Amino acid sequence: MGYTITEKIIKNHLAVGEMVRGEEIAIKIDQTLTQDSTGTMAYLQFEAMEVPRVKTNRSVAYIDHNMLQTGPENMDDHIYIQTVAKKHGIYYSKPGNGICHQVNIERFGVPGQTLLGSDSHTPTGGGVGMLAIGAGGLDVAVAMAGGPYYITMPEIVKVELKGKLNPGVASKDIILEVLKRCTVKGGINRVFEYVGEGVKSLTVPERATITNMGAELGATTSVFPSDDITMQFLKSQGREKDFVELKADPDAKYDLEIVVDLNELQAMAACPHSPDNVKFISELEGTKVNQVAIGSCTNSSYLDLMKAANILEGKTVSENVSLVIAPGSKQVLNMLAENGALAKLIDSGARILECGCGPCIGMGQSPNTKGVSLRTFNRNFKGRSGTVDADVYIVSPETAAVSAITGVITDPVKNIPVGALDIEIPELFKVNDNMIVEPAEDNNDVQVVKGPNIKPFPKTSVLEDKIDKKVLIIVEDNITTDHIMPSNAKLLPYRSNIPYLSDYCLTPCDSEFPERAKENSGGIIVAGHNYGQGSSREHAALAPLYLGIKAVVAKSFARIHKNNLINNGILPLVFVDESDYDKISLMDEMVMENVLDSVGKKEMTIVDKTKDIQIKTKVDITDRQIDIIKKGGLINYMKEIN
Amino acid sequence: MGYTITEKIIKNHLAVGEMVRGEEIAIKIDQTLTQDSTGTMAYLQFEAMEVPRVKTNRSVAYIDHNMLQTGPENMDDHIYIQTVAKKHGIYYSKPGNGICHQVNIERFGVPGQTLLGSDSHTPTGGGVGMLAIGAGGLDVAVAMAGGPYYITMPEIVKVELKGKLNPGVASKDIILEVLKRCTVKGGINRVFEYVGEGVKSLTVPERATITNMGAELGATTSVFPSDDITMQFLKSQGREKDFVELKADPDAKYDLEIVVDLNELQAMAACPHSPDNVKFISELEGTKVNQVAIGSCTNSSYLDLMKAANILEGKTVSENVSLVIAPGSKQVLNMLAENGALAKLIDSGARILECGCGPCIGMGQSPNTKGVSLRTFNRNFKGRSGTVDADVYIVSPETAAVSAITGVITDPVKNIPVGALDIEIPELFKVNDNMIVEPAEDNNDVQVVKGPNIKPFPKTSVLEDKIDKKVLIIVEDNITTDHIMPSNAKLLPYRSNIPYLSDYCLTPCDSEFPERAKENSGGIIVAGHNYGQGSSREHAALAPLYLGIKAVVAKSFARIHKNNLINNGILPLVFVDESDYDKISLMDEMVMENVLDSVGKKEMTIVDKTKDIQIKTKVDITDRQIDIIKKGGLINYMKEIN
Repeated sequence: MGYTITEKIIKNHLAVGEMVRGEEIAIKIDQTLTQDSTGTMAYLQFEAMEVPRVKTNRSVAYIDHNMLQTGPENMDDHIYIQTVAKKHGIYYSKPGNGICHQVNIERFGVPGQTLLGSDSHTPTGGGVGMLAIGAGGLDVAVAMAGGPYYITMPEIVKVELKGKLNPGVASKDIILEVLKRCTVKGGINRVFEYVGEGVKSLTVPERATITNMGAELGATTSVFPSDDITMQFLKSQGREKDFVELKADPDAKYDLEIVVDLNELQAMAACPHSPDNVKFISELEGTKVNQVAIGSCTNSSYLDLMKAANILEGKTVSENVSLVIAPGSKQVLNMLAENGALAKLIDSGARILECGCGPCIGMGQSPNTKGVSLRTFNRNFKGRSGTVDADVYIVSPETAAVSAITGVITDPVKNIPVGALDIEIPELFKVNDNMIVEPAEDNNDVQVVKGPNIKPFPKTSVLEDKIDKKVLIIVEDNITTDHIMPSNAKLLPYRSNIPYLSDYCLTPCDSEFPERAKENSGGIIVAGHNYGQGSSREHAALAPLYLGIKAVVAKSFARIHKNNLINNGILPLVFVDESDYDKISLMDEMVMENVLDSVGKKEMTIVDKTKDIQIKTKVDITDRQIDIIKKGGLINYMKEIN
Repeated sequence: MGYTITEKIIKNHLAVGEMVRGEEIAIKIDQTLTQDSTGTMAYLQFEAMEVPRVKTNRSVAYIDHNMLQTGPENMDDHIYIQTVAKKHGIYYSKPGNGICHQVNIERFGVPGQTLLGSDSHTPTGGGVGMLAIGAGGLDVAVAMAGGPYYITMPEIVKVELKGKLNPGVASKDIILEVLKRCTVKGGINRVFEYVGEGVKSLTVPERATITNMGAELGATTSVFPSDDITMQFLKSQGREKDFVELKADPDAKYDLEIVVDLNELQAMAACPHSPDNVKFISELEGTKVNQVAIGSCTNSSYLDLMKAANILEGKTVSENVSLVIAPGSKQVLNMLAENGALAKLIDSGARILECGCGPCIGMGQSPNTKGVSLRTFNRNFKGRSGTVDADVYIVSPETAAVSAITGVITDPVKNIPVGALDIEIPELFKVNDNMIVEPAEDNNDVQVVKGPNIKPFPKTSVLEDKIDKKVLIIVEDNITTDHIMPSNAKLLPYRSNIPYLSDYCLTPCDSEFPERAKENSGGIIVAGHNYGQGSSREHAALAPLYLGIKAVVAKSFARIHKNNLINNGILPLVFVDESDYDKISLMDEMVMENVLDSVGKKEMTIVDKTKDIQIKTKVDITDRQIDIIKKGGLINYMKEIN
């Protein structure tokens, strides 16, 4: 029987379980990456595991999120990450060297290898044929410590690309088409594999745009074959030795198939406020634009910015538009500065931002009130730009550049200057890794520097056999990680300071929750369906942990957040009878006896002493997770097995 | 009798008074500039004067302060300034076009003209022989409305520059030498005029570094002659028609004379935490550096950055240093992008920031906790960087660049690569003003857009004849404008929102002051000596005005803040007997009768009804100011005389 690319890579890395769809498996991780907003916590957790040196082939710590530095917190974090990386065998990419995914694919991506990153857009690496998966910081810490990564064996979706894109239509439009068809929920527990004739016409950065934004499908990851074009890309980076060919067997079996005819695609936009709210640009033409932003891990490659430079050459940005451009990496910026393209962009009136995530994560360049912003990014959730009532459209660099000139949403197909897209990709890219600091050979000399903003993460202890705590909050259905642990430009600098962050925990639902939790020395959260949906943010478990939360009793949990609760020793309990939810009141006293035994049996009876009723719950977790939660979380578990 | 340059310009612009040292005079203003953190308020005030079009030769509104945009407030302000400018005959420099002083000298500076700017570093324009003065936003609004600017006729200091700088010693070191000798108080009510052989060896940007940082002397302004070098500079900007020769008469009389022998100067640094705490670099060599920042209105010209690029060419920034570079203008950035210098900087590992003030005003790039930061900026006050315990050193671009490579403070004289300072200044600079929006010919069509963060500034009413209010706060000596109206990265976006800002008014002294003022419908402030020292920040008068403050009774006032109080209709009263200060308690009821008559007589008796005592005070203001305060402030006054 033939294998898909995904299966081939998983087979080569399988550590636990069997490749049966829907079953839990664990895979060995070759490479890890972190960015700084999740990284500080990941390294604090890695330190707690007491492993002297990472056990991966390569681990890289990037600084790309918190680069505005409006107080000492950011640079303190940078220095902590730099020193902890140096000590423990991790490469450190200095602020200014670029966005983790862009730099990683340029300098470190290896076809056929596995990459685990503490950022949801880690699948970018699929552009060079890696199996690249986004995960929580603690998962990455475990991988660095040599532990395998547990996932559900995914279904595999074949996306067959036929034909070739017309000029002005971009690879961004391919992924927008897939999003339009599959929606933001269409990728859950699935890997998207791109195959077919159309693949051959796409460069690695174009492929990476697609795998990057596969994250918006909710997919486990996306992957392209490794072929001549991959070889050419690696060669241009001086890394031809990293090449291995990788393709699906002719008789490989897929769970689902999609066909996209590239010839028929048009320029598109994801309209406010979801990446799957996709319309043709032709339907939107003429909409007045206040801001255009080019960059992010989705569209900040040399090719992307060369397109923008050629379109903008000799033109002037509309007087009513602020055009901001954030190149993806130092390599890209340096090459544009050498070949004159950057000068063209500046000449046209573009604002050049640092190489980093910046506006894509709401770190600066928030649009005006009710403003319209066209962005080559990946997400346009309401408020993500920092302006709650702004309308953000997700488009290709081509669409962004032509619209910046006209000041209204403009179709690139009809408006790109002749020859502007005839871009020759250099045979050799400029390689100068002098912003990547190598780890120390001997780690004894390295002192890890922790500024005052870097607080120890909250410690867990072994699961107690009796829990007697009050209900501190009762929340409704679909509570997101943004409710549990808000994230914005003001709070992001405190990602390494759980005591500070915890004062904002669940405050969008109840401003007095943190205070109440402290007064009662912790307690229990009661929730509706789909508790913890949204990002993989581990802080949504760490802040409750710090506040002494022992259990969350919910109608159902979002998958990643449930794992984060378990990893941090907090019990996720599911109502057997959902109507019990309505019987519980704020500050009810809840008692659980024989907790250890009950967890082992995967069922727990809670006595609501205030109401004098019994509430039956399920402990819907794997045997491995039972072990983890009994030991008080994944770090304790890792320390024991190491 | 011969005239100095200063006298020649004043004579040509004298509107009120006579050129007698120490007397009040008023001068006609040819040009104005605003930056955005003071600009929004200045334009709101200008609008209130109901003048349809500015009466200056040229007025320019720059965006250079609030460019991080971590929420909608900044871009809302930009759009307000853009539209109000367009309507009223003001040129608008878009964000990204550069720092006001750098752009103004490049594109608009005219020798012999007067320039009033709502930024303390407006004297930069003295580099091309302008009489360029920093003032409050309301002063600038008045100038735009055609009103003259009132100053005390200054003393004039002759600074004779002898000889020529040695390689590695910079014009920055000249002004550091002057600061070392004269201190930060040495320039009060004085203009510094640079003359002598040494002037001829200094380019316009080098002169501008000196006049810019003359602000740190507390000087009214500083000025250079307009000579062949000025002509050459204007020609390179395509503006030779703006040239006029300007020099002091041979028999001109100066009040003071200083001689600086350039041959004998060494590289220097202003050490923490004052610009006059100047030491030789040789005394500081080897100090470990965490951050190096090149840019700001002091040192971000083409010449400055070419020096840095040549020094850094082929080198790598120390692994422990974060080097950030913010070019002064689009012109500078564009030229560096065209000639390859920017590529050299990027290649070395520099982070390229937007063209703007940025880290110089604490808007980003705050150093780490207790970090050492070397900056080519102008001010190193404690905490200004955004990191309260950081040590900031003010140095030349040469010193900054060589130290960025070594990672320790390093003397440029001994360490600059051969030939690195042989920089040819292009005969023609790149002129593309496409980020400067021209005002509308017909202002009827222009709609001024005010986002929700732009609140009307508090209105004043005519002075009432009886005041009966409580003492809301009693503060000690030397209260600064930072106490009265704190300014930081979190509050700066609210400079156009006095209601929001007023909740922070005087909170560093008493967190309950704003609340107390609101509960009592306003009241009176009692203060010690030198109340309101520090910046020219008008918000330190506007926030109290919004809170209903009717009078400040102090032992003495700082000059600019006293003017700001008067301009906003708040009475500045000075204790006749300072011991009365100790007799007053918080919440005492203070009554002033016959206020109008008393102000006219410049004396006011306050009855402390709680203590049943009389307190005598002086109203130490000019007759013109009596008129202003009776009418309820300068805007009402302007409306009447227009």
